[in-house]
Amino acid sequence: MSQEVLNYLQENREHLLDRLKEFLSIPSVSTDSEYKDAVRKAADYLITYLRDIGFNQVELQETAGHPIVYAHYDQAGKDKPTVLIYGHYDVQPADPLEEWDSDPFKPEVRNGRLYARGASDDKGQVFMHLAVLEAFMKTKGHIPLNIKVCIEGEEEIGSENLYTMLEEKKELYAADFVVISDSGMVAENQPTILYGLKGSTALELTVTGPKRDLHSGIYGGAVRNPIMALSHILSSIKNEDEEILVKGFYDGAEKLSFEERELIQSVPGEDYVQTTGVPEAVSEKGYTAKEHTMARPTFEINGIYGGYQGEGTKTIIPTSATAKITCRLVPGQDPVHVQQCIEKHIEKVKPSGVTVELKKEKFSAKAYKVEPNHPLIQKAAESYTRAFGKETVYARMGGSIPVVEWLDTIYDVPVVLLGFGTPEDRLHSPNESFPLSSFDKGMETLVYYWTSFQK
Amino acid sequence: MSQEVLNYLQENREHLLDRLKEFLSIPSVSTDSEYKDAVRKAADYLITYLRDIGFNQVELQETAGHPIVYAHYDQAGKDKPTVLIYGHYDVQPADPLEEWDSDPFKPEVRNGRLYARGASDDKGQVFMHLAVLEAFMKTKGHIPLNIKVCIEGEEEIGSENLYTMLEEKKELYAADFVVISDSGMVAENQPTILYGLKGSTALELTVTGPKRDLHSGIYGGAVRNPIMALSHILSSIKNEDEEILVKGFYDGAEKLSFEERELIQSVPGEDYVQTTGVPEAVSEKGYTAKEHTMARPTFEINGIYGGYQGEGTKTIIPTSATAKITCRLVPGQDPVHVQQCIEKHIEKVKPSGVTVELKKEKFSAKAYKVEPNHPLIQKAAESYTRAFGKETVYARMGGSIPVVEWLDTIYDVPVVLLGFGTPEDRLHSPNESFPLSSFDKGMETLVYYWTSFQK
Repeated sequence: MSQEVLNYLQENREHLLDRLKEFLSIPSVSTDSEYKDAVRKAADYLITYLRDIGFNQVELQETAGHPIVYAHYDQAGKDKPTVLIYGHYDVQPADPLEEWDSDPFKPEVRNGRLYARGASDDKGQVFMHLAVLEAFMKTKGHIPLNIKVCIEGEEEIGSENLYTMLEEKKELYAADFVVISDSGMVAENQPTILYGLKGSTALELTVTGPKRDLHSGIYGGAVRNPIMALSHILSSIKNEDEEILVKGFYDGAEKLSFEERELIQSVPGEDYVQTTGVPEAVSEKGYTAKEHTMARPTFEINGIYGGYQGEGTKTIIPTSATAKITCRLVPGQDPVHVQQCIEKHIEKVKPSGVTVELKKEKFSAKAYKVEPNHPLIQKAAESYTRAFGKETVYARMGGSIPVVEWLDTIYDVPVVLLGFGTPEDRLHSPNESFPLSSFDKGMETLVYYWTSFQK
Repeated sequence: MSQEVLNYLQENREHLLDRLKEFLSIPSVSTDSEYKDAVRKAADYLITYLRDIGFNQVELQETAGHPIVYAHYDQAGKDKPTVLIYGHYDVQPADPLEEWDSDPFKPEVRNGRLYARGASDDKGQVFMHLAVLEAFMKTKGHIPLNIKVCIEGEEEIGSENLYTMLEEKKELYAADFVVISDSGMVAENQPTILYGLKGSTALELTVTGPKRDLHSGIYGGAVRNPIMALSHILSSIKNEDEEILVKGFYDGAEKLSFEERELIQSVPGEDYVQTTGVPEAVSEKGYTAKEHTMARPTFEINGIYGGYQGEGTKTIIPTSATAKITCRLVPGQDPVHVQQCIEKHIEKVKPSGVTVELKKEKFSAKAYKVEPNHPLIQKAAESYTRAFGKETVYARMGGSIPVVEWLDTIYDVPVVLLGFGTPEDRLHSPNESFPLSSFDKGMETLVYYWTSFQK
């Protein structure tokens, strides 16, 4: 019975791709206030689309930050379950711009891939969901199950306002299960359902010395260099075996069982030297790179700056230096406890002659894990396998989707992580892209999945 | 006999200050190619001034970089010695601009100080020399000794082309002694002659990991973080006792004798907490801040950058991180040897999973020391004491003036470091300034000094 729907998607493929390009050309960078209007424009785009599809309730919900797109379709009938489809329409900054082969906000298809910021994370995958729902309505006049849509504009900056919204309007978003396509397959055309995500927490550490930049000749030997002090602090946090030395950091972290190590082993791996260009892969002592990325905590410095960055030399002792940090956490770790442990550690190791300021991100996320053999996950896996013609694998991901843990906590319903990205998508990097094969087979997967609720 | 000359300087004080402001308003930032034309404009300003004074030979000497201003006055007669007055007309970058209370290139007098980039280092002090020579010519029609002037435009970037020029045109610059006003007094109105300078050498260290920025969730745990790797390298170079741990770094470094420690102790010190705003002064274990700044080597990180520096968070593992470094050296240390030792050290401690590139500045300078009781230095000290009405002290400085060591090596003549800056001048920092008291008494000092060659 799904053939008609599939035909519609095939016949309208070019038209749908053009509409996706239109969506991707809106620079909805949530972290940079300069793009505030563009973010709203992306939300309006979705509101219009959802109205066109024929949802009987479509609302732009204002928050303290960027708005949330909400929609409800309840015509499938009381006997049918309600699924909450979550996604986000905001994207990461595009810089460094000079490293893009084409304009990040002028989508372009090259060798079977659609290049644009957000093509994979997450505007592309959000669009696929809407296109499939459009196909059902245009061909059948109805959708096999009840749908709630929640597409936020702050996923890349911590989803704080969504959290508040979920708590305030618990009933509005209530559903029997949740489907999220904001992740990837372990390899192109390898159906992958994620059964675990990492939590995350962000910190910003600033070390301050003199009130002004000082001449390094006149004052070198009299004051502590803030950049060197920052280096001493940072290097005390992780050793060269990639072990985090902060007391209490690993508290409660779920141990990796023999069975799970086997399962992780069975998942096709990524050749990191090949895909990232590093001289060699490096991971925590005693764990493989696959195990560390999927199931062990991390401490990463995302950026650092201080002093003179221009051409040539400037012989100064700078006034301060700053490091931006994010940690990824596994089940059992408490983000707030982790922040506190890092704060205590810094206080302990901080050198004399400087002051230290640590900004702690208010909203952090715990890690998430679900049982791979839950019936709703199995249903999804079957559709996935059928569309791609290949057995679905189950994996954990090092990435974090805070909302997953919140939905799990607030509603206690299964969250199905049905992602269609690939390791080559370059999320958060220059030249982000999404394979058209995923675009086609991904939508096919969704058609099978929703149809399976018909009977 | 010098009264007439002093009167001229007093009567024309406002006019001279206006001309100095004009000189300072030219943004001659040598390190930034964007200011290339401004640098040349500053050189032209000097050429015109020297011609007006009445030098019988004035030349703009082209180099591979910024030109050198050369002038010669030989009318004092064969029986009189020739002094080479060296200075530089280039300045440090003015950034961070927002920290200036007034435009760095719109000179402004506030509470007895002239605020502008270069007011003290070194355009202000160069101007004083020319004003004094003008005064002699305008009042006496001659100068008591023969003068050669060498004012370069690349002191802030290593003086490479001056070095080449000195070697190529050895005769042109030959003199019986050298006078340089590019330094400061240990305290305002405390006559100070420097008998020692540090050497210096610059390095730039870049650590590279992945070929592109990576998603810290997907790849954290599989690749080495270049910023953390850089922190490990940097923190291995200096411990929290401010001891440099690079094997061979201190090779040949002159030991600090008991007598010299006494001498340093006798020099009025600077209250670093007061003048720089650091919580406390920090210096090498076993040495006072005064000893370390004057007579012990230093390793300073002048700047660091890598990854995301924008608003909010960006969860990446950056492709690379860079640190800009300068070392200050004492007599006995060889800059090239120091560079090699640091390079070996980095090779030894460099973590796996990243590549390292070390750029070594081609031109470095050895440290310089002269005998405080040399007659030409004593002559200068007497003039200094007479003008300021206070006994002259002898000090060493942590700063470096590469040309001093070169002139010493090439011509083997005494170099008199007769500087009029003060610890409050904020060299290389926002709000650089120069006290008008130094402007007046400094010129007076020079008048007495040159007059002493009359008899």
